[in-house]
Amino acid sequence: MGMTIAEKILAAHAGKKEVTPGEIINAKVDIVLANDITAPIAIKEFEKLGVKDVFDRERIALVPDHFTPQKDIKAAEQCKMLREFAQKYKIKHYFEIGRVGIEHALLPEEGIVLPGDLVIGADSHTCTYGALGAFATGVGSTDAAIAMATGECWFKVPETIKFIYYGKLQKWVSGKDLILYTIGDIGVDGASYMAMEFIGEVIDNMPMSGRFSMCNMAIEAGAKAGIIVPDKITEEYVKLRAKRPYKIYNSDQDAKYFEIKEYDCSRIPPVVACPHLPSNVKPANELSHIKIDQVVIGSCTNGRLEDLREAAMVLKGRKVHPEVRMIIIPATQKIYMQALKEGLIEIFIDAQAVVSPPTCGPCLGGHMGILAKGERAIATTNRNFVGRMGHPESEVYLSNPAVAAASGVLGRIGTPEELGL
Amino acid sequence: MGMTIAEKILAAHAGKKEVTPGEIINAKVDIVLANDITAPIAIKEFEKLGVKDVFDRERIALVPDHFTPQKDIKAAEQCKMLREFAQKYKIKHYFEIGRVGIEHALLPEEGIVLPGDLVIGADSHTCTYGALGAFATGVGSTDAAIAMATGECWFKVPETIKFIYYGKLQKWVSGKDLILYTIGDIGVDGASYMAMEFIGEVIDNMPMSGRFSMCNMAIEAGAKAGIIVPDKITEEYVKLRAKRPYKIYNSDQDAKYFEIKEYDCSRIPPVVACPHLPSNVKPANELSHIKIDQVVIGSCTNGRLEDLREAAMVLKGRKVHPEVRMIIIPATQKIYMQALKEGLIEIFIDAQAVVSPPTCGPCLGGHMGILAKGERAIATTNRNFVGRMGHPESEVYLSNPAVAAASGVLGRIGTPEELGL
Repeated sequence: MGMTIAEKILAAHAGKKEVTPGEIINAKVDIVLANDITAPIAIKEFEKLGVKDVFDRERIALVPDHFTPQKDIKAAEQCKMLREFAQKYKIKHYFEIGRVGIEHALLPEEGIVLPGDLVIGADSHTCTYGALGAFATGVGSTDAAIAMATGECWFKVPETIKFIYYGKLQKWVSGKDLILYTIGDIGVDGASYMAMEFIGEVIDNMPMSGRFSMCNMAIEAGAKAGIIVPDKITEEYVKLRAKRPYKIYNSDQDAKYFEIKEYDCSRIPPVVACPHLPSNVKPANELSHIKIDQVVIGSCTNGRLEDLREAAMVLKGRKVHPEVRMIIIPATQKIYMQALKEGLIEIFIDAQAVVSPPTCGPCLGGHMGILAKGERAIATTNRNFVGRMGHPESEVYLSNPAVAAASGVLGRIGTPEELGL
Repeated sequence: MGMTIAEKILAAHAGKKEVTPGEIINAKVDIVLANDITAPIAIKEFEKLGVKDVFDRERIALVPDHFTPQKDIKAAEQCKMLREFAQKYKIKHYFEIGRVGIEHALLPEEGIVLPGDLVIGADSHTCTYGALGAFATGVGSTDAAIAMATGECWFKVPETIKFIYYGKLQKWVSGKDLILYTIGDIGVDGASYMAMEFIGEVIDNMPMSGRFSMCNMAIEAGAKAGIIVPDKITEEYVKLRAKRPYKIYNSDQDAKYFEIKEYDCSRIPPVVACPHLPSNVKPANELSHIKIDQVVIGSCTNGRLEDLREAAMVLKGRKVHPEVRMIIIPATQKIYMQALKEGLIEIFIDAQAVVSPPTCGPCLGGHMGILAKGERAIATTNRNFVGRMGHPESEVYLSNPAVAAASGVLGRIGTPEELGL
């Protein structure tokens, strides 16, 4: 019997020839990740274990990205805990403020996460790394603590759903639209505790940025992981960055899937997830009555260079609507620098957007663009739950960067095509 | 009997031929300013007055700069109050996030405050505008509210102390050092309720940026105002920006001063104000044992283009010390854009500094770089009171941008000269 890529990675890390969905396994992890919100809890638990050292100082990543630069005393204290822990155990992948970025953009960029890896992170969007052909999933801080000590974690082997994307993408449609459309189709529990394997000609031609966006939001359908079998595009991305060996896994032809879904992408327009669920998806052009107060372009979902380029194509020579605040957040310092060199930052400032240093910030209601009562934002982020970006009576709409940028210019939800693009 | 420039401006605005120190007058104000912390209080008081309109919609400036981009729900609600008030009364000088900057950098930059003006602002550093030859002072939010309704405010005419700066400035010494040195000399109550008039050959040759820094910190000596008689440098600055007439005032030769202080600037080295008072001033090179955790370059005191250039001269081709976070905050979007075009932002990012959008942020412990317990920052800001930048057990050292930048590279307080500059 064949196995899926997810099953193969789990089996290999559990030291088994094969695994079956539903099976509980113990597996070695390649990377354990935590951030300034979750690491402090993990560190406290780790210290309780009484172990002398971490399992491998090169296999732990600590990224202060959520409430940084430190938004308040509590955030400062949490960052200090990370810093001191990193110093004490000589953690290689600790990223000080100023050398940092949003964890899920940073780890692939730095070549810390690689194809074939088994990765756990004390952050729900750890599933992002599936775009590299890794099995990556979010865990609680206590599981992360145990893994920091032992290098191991338990897993229930998930079923896999195969999602096949075919047809020609419409203009201004990207990976973000496909994943929103998919979540709209299957619902926020449509892939509960499963792996979502993305495949098909559209994926074959999709840049890494779009693949990261898709895998990033697998959790929004309840999935344990999103995953894409590595190909030439993956290898192109990885070969510049990898500093250790890695292994490419494939799904077998006769692998067993829980379900197979197919989407004709030529029929998918730019979409928007309306409040208060990522599954509440509608075509963007049906929402032109929705006025907005704020636009956020960034996050682990869509803060990559390609995303900023897309926003810049829309914003170039235009101004943000006078009643709208637009906040653009490059996901890492490297992306910021590249965007600067390409002239994107200048386009943004010229359009009267705020350019923030890398931070998760407003996505989770942290800082850097929190909403007041009754305010509405369109954001390239991944969640639009009640109060996600601020006041419980505020609203968040989710879209791709081009739609978000166009909406910022229009002062209401709209598409680049309405601007003649 | 002659009058000082401060007395002349107050007399003119009170409709009197002359005023005497100690006299209580009622005077017309040219500009009333408030920010996202103080305007909400002023607006509430204004609404209680039952008046139908503001005194002049072109003479009120509302600048959301302290906790912006909105750091939390409360900040978002406060910004919303400003926005709605500005819309209701069609306030001309309301600056939306993304078009904004730190108030005391923004108002001169936009030509909103001009020589000869009488300006009140619900912010203690309103005295900054004295650099333009205006009489500008901080007031409480309720006084600002009354002035928004009536265009008038009461003043007690202050005594004036004349500060004469002569000699040749040492390398890496700027206006910030002179004002710190002065405060160190006279103490934080050395000019209580007085005007500080800055004069002398050093001032004659000082760019506007240095003059703004000096007047900005007059309040740190307890002064009601800092003020510099306009000259060619002032006019050069103003003529590009003024959109309404203004009047140049001079101090009479026989004006009466409370005191005259003289400083030989050739004897003033780069200085640092140590915790926890701006008057606790020592030569920077006597503090090389002080390790630092964070550097902040920005604020209404030193976030101007000249300040950023100075920091860039030090940081170019260098890296911030690995254990230091450096946060650089251009004071306005225009300064940010100019810094970007001059390549300064690239230098900062390359040095591994964080570049923040314009905000007062960390200066007042607001956001964007708050200190944890036991942490130490060197900052180009204006106050180093207990807990000013975060935890009550953190410390702030005040300096000019070059010393702050050099300290960031060294990981301890130091001077550009130690880097061979």
